[in-house]
Amino acid sequence: MIDEEILGQIVTAGTNRIALIVLDGVGDLPYGGKTPLEAARTPMLDSLAKKSALGMHIPVEPGIIPGSGPGHLGLFGYDPVANLIGRGVLEAVGIGMEVEDTDIAIRGNFCTAEEENGQLIIVDRRAGRIPTEKNAELVSILRENIQEIEGVQVIFNTVREHRFVVILRFPHPVTPAHALVTENDPQKTGEPELKIVPEASEAQKTAEIVHTLLTRIREVIGKEQPANYALLRGFSVKPVLTPFYKRYLVRALAIAAYPMYRGIAKLVGMDVAKERTDSIEDEINVLKKYMDSGRYDFFFVHIKKTDSYGEDGNFEKKVSVIEEFDTQLAKLFPVKDTVLCITGDHSTPCIMKSHSWHPVPLLIHSPYVLGSPESRFTERDCLRGELGIIRSRNIMLLLLAHAERLKKFGA
Amino acid sequence: MIDEEILGQIVTAGTNRIALIVLDGVGDLPYGGKTPLEAARTPMLDSLAKKSALGMHIPVEPGIIPGSGPGHLGLFGYDPVANLIGRGVLEAVGIGMEVEDTDIAIRGNFCTAEEENGQLIIVDRRAGRIPTEKNAELVSILRENIQEIEGVQVIFNTVREHRFVVILRFPHPVTPAHALVTENDPQKTGEPELKIVPEASEAQKTAEIVHTLLTRIREVIGKEQPANYALLRGFSVKPVLTPFYKRYLVRALAIAAYPMYRGIAKLVGMDVAKERTDSIEDEINVLKKYMDSGRYDFFFVHIKKTDSYGEDGNFEKKVSVIEEFDTQLAKLFPVKDTVLCITGDHSTPCIMKSHSWHPVPLLIHSPYVLGSPESRFTERDCLRGELGIIRSRNIMLLLLAHAERLKKFGA
Repeated sequence: MIDEEILGQIVTAGTNRIALIVLDGVGDLPYGGKTPLEAARTPMLDSLAKKSALGMHIPVEPGIIPGSGPGHLGLFGYDPVANLIGRGVLEAVGIGMEVEDTDIAIRGNFCTAEEENGQLIIVDRRAGRIPTEKNAELVSILRENIQEIEGVQVIFNTVREHRFVVILRFPHPVTPAHALVTENDPQKTGEPELKIVPEASEAQKTAEIVHTLLTRIREVIGKEQPANYALLRGFSVKPVLTPFYKRYLVRALAIAAYPMYRGIAKLVGMDVAKERTDSIEDEINVLKKYMDSGRYDFFFVHIKKTDSYGEDGNFEKKVSVIEEFDTQLAKLFPVKDTVLCITGDHSTPCIMKSHSWHPVPLLIHSPYVLGSPESRFTERDCLRGELGIIRSRNIMLLLLAHAERLKKFGA
Repeated sequence: MIDEEILGQIVTAGTNRIALIVLDGVGDLPYGGKTPLEAARTPMLDSLAKKSALGMHIPVEPGIIPGSGPGHLGLFGYDPVANLIGRGVLEAVGIGMEVEDTDIAIRGNFCTAEEENGQLIIVDRRAGRIPTEKNAELVSILRENIQEIEGVQVIFNTVREHRFVVILRFPHPVTPAHALVTENDPQKTGEPELKIVPEASEAQKTAEIVHTLLTRIREVIGKEQPANYALLRGFSVKPVLTPFYKRYLVRALAIAAYPMYRGIAKLVGMDVAKERTDSIEDEINVLKKYMDSGRYDFFFVHIKKTDSYGEDGNFEKKVSVIEEFDTQLAKLFPVKDTVLCITGDHSTPCIMKSHSWHPVPLLIHSPYVLGSPESRFTERDCLRGELGIIRSRNIMLLLLAHAERLKKFGA
């Protein structure tokens, strides 16, 4: 296993750049005989594949269905199992909140509770899935009334429907142990809420604050209907990740439309392009602009819609997003002194309408490849590729090697 | 991961032999459409490939560019990351010095220093790359004047140009902790030399001896020009490797022309053939002789020139070395009761003129294979082979299995 000590010995600065373009959930399975990549007309990807190294990558382990956190951490070269991003933190960065190293981030559900013999019985864990507008209203009331508890700042934010995020911002840095408290969600309706219990001595104060927070939430919205209380889950702190520029000696820029991916990129220390990107065309234009600027030498571009249409089970639309990407990709060329990698963070087969464990097609374009003259960028062709089937976390080192940014290991 | 405890349970003695022929740096990339292996006329390898298992191996991890140390340790079945050979030791064995378990081996540069306010300022870290003859002269003066410091024997040896090796031979065995001292090389010219500092309590005495050694070196050659001082780096001890015969129950012989590879073979406990081998023909002849003798049951044959021509970027010469090998290989046949493995320790693509991370073609000839009737021993054909893409450190167990030297694992 290549640890950070070894990385520190072999990673070196260089002049070649790397562009990692992630088609979220692009990997798929046949529907009517063909996968979306096979069905799509992709002249640009076809010609690129011939001059590239192809392969497949497995995000975590065979059979493991990755979430977006592990999927991207793997692509960025971090061990996605050892560096799990807590659910509270992921929810927070997913709506564009900044998570500091003094913060415990928590996922909240607005719920319906009834008092019974001094206990709060949870009668609807999602308060009938209240509309997002109602959620925003409640969050606004909570913000007005609860800003601080015992010196800890409390920051609420709406996600959608019944879901919200609350961040506890301590006056000092926190560790994972500070977040080790149990959840109050009984997971079943008709049951009393559970008590918040610390599971480490460092979490004692957290448990007290969460307890007070819940009491205050009940005081503030207890008279509302149907959402009159909250269930808190996924207590977590910002993961300790050696930043990208320190691990790889690259100045990295993320171009992503969705807050979740901008957030994950920030967690690993990338800059995030501020430009608004409503389409693939926008994203490729922004990439081109920054590639020309010379300010960055690593680019992470995240394209969401391949995943969205996979989740919808919409085969035709997934095909057309791939074709749209192919058209926009062509505009990027010629690219100079740049290793180009096109892949996904996981598969989202249309017939499954969900993330899956299937290996993901991988293309690395550089001068240092055997090449695949008879292949396209598809699942079946990539399976026969020169890169074999590797783990996602191996991709970063391959890209650095292709960009001549790795020194020899051992004499 | 198969550790030595499991190895001990499954490895068994046998009568079949194993010959591992390493064409250093043989793996390559296309130049004008073909790799050297694809361009070479290799009737012997072609016919062998049909009756062999083919595959590819990755020396360390995808993207990692292996030095000769990790490359060969992997081939010999040792974890090349956990068992890194220190630079001092590799430099020492590379010039044919014996490294004992009482030794700290150190790489030295002759350099030019100037005294300034009682400090030594390094004005040329390589003393203008003095010729090897001058180096030998200086080493001879140092040998005459410095043989021992506080009971520790001091052994100097020329490498070439400004580079030399010094071994500190203690009266007792040393551990890696004994070698944990900082280097005096400031890495920049115009800077004062750095102080040698112990980084472990066991290294206290080492630091004192190195300090004295540097003072003595300055006393002895301080009036020379331009090389009037030394920079010492790569302090290391012989790695603790369970010897080959103990791990694998084979009597192993190494046939290699270059000291580096003879040295690595010695580090894992192989015997080294004393015969002078100036050509591939010589090496194959020596192999044939020892195979007939029955004294050994494992042979490691190292052929250097594939790598040398790769490093030179000389495609035609690399092709012709492969063809020369093919011709000589034919003379080996018929071989009886021998599993023959032909591969490289890493790739050295001519277009890169350096070691690379690319997977290496692998051929295992034994009766127990699916066979590859339509394949040659080339990168692209091996990619489709029955062995898949494996790690180098898995090859040894495959060879033992093919040689019927492994028992069932578990009941």
